[in-house]
Amino acid sequence: MTDSAFPNFDKYELIPVVVQHAISKEVLMLAYMNLTAYRETLRTGQAHFWSRSRQTLWLKGATSGNYQSVEEIRIDCDEDALLLLVIPQGPACHTGQPSCFYRQSLPVQD
Amino acid sequence: MTDSAFPNFDKYELIPVVVQHAISKEVLMLAYMNLTAYRETLRTGQAHFWSRSRQTLWLKGATSGNYQSVEEIRIDCDEDALLLLVIPQGPACHTGQPSCFYRQSLPVQD
Repeated sequence: MTDSAFPNFDKYELIPVVVQHAISKEVLMLAYMNLTAYRETLRTGQAHFWSRSRQTLWLKGATSGNYQSVEEIRIDCDEDALLLLVIPQGPACHTGQPSCFYRQSLPVQD
Repeated sequence: MTDSAFPNFDKYELIPVVVQHAISKEVLMLAYMNLTAYRETLRTGQAHFWSRSRQTLWLKGATSGNYQSVEEIRIDCDEDALLLLVIPQGPACHTGQPSCFYRQSLPVQD
């Protein structure tokens, strides 16, 4: 993979980030980065996000200890989504599940 | 996986959807669904999204032929993100790459 690009934080204040286990390839969670979270992730090698609920910069694992070490960051064709390949120090989900996507999604009725 | 839940379209008009290859586990793309796209996906078994750029319902593959057959839909702990496990009929990306995440993401300078 030789091509590269910049995430478009000029157009989008928040960019969705898919977090995938670098080895098992399990999708662990979806979170958001702003420019600060993106820079902190690159600077430290640990996943940082923007918490929409708490409206603050969020070092993943700061309270739980379940940090995510970033192996690689990929960007999509539109430069408006990121894919983080990580080695997690523990469960991604606050429920204790390894992945936040641990449930089936049901049909929504009329 | 016995637990299940509904996506929260009451709170969020658009919900981000991670599309992952059901067999290779490669993350193919990130797109968005509204309630209509979600229902059409469940009804037909083919991935439908909401196109933010064209502001219209989008049957993935309608123009390219690269449909995505949906094997499973998972939902995250907050009910505000979905994970689609699909068998793609061709490349996910409009560039012809199998995945939209074919590039490295670069540091953004001050």
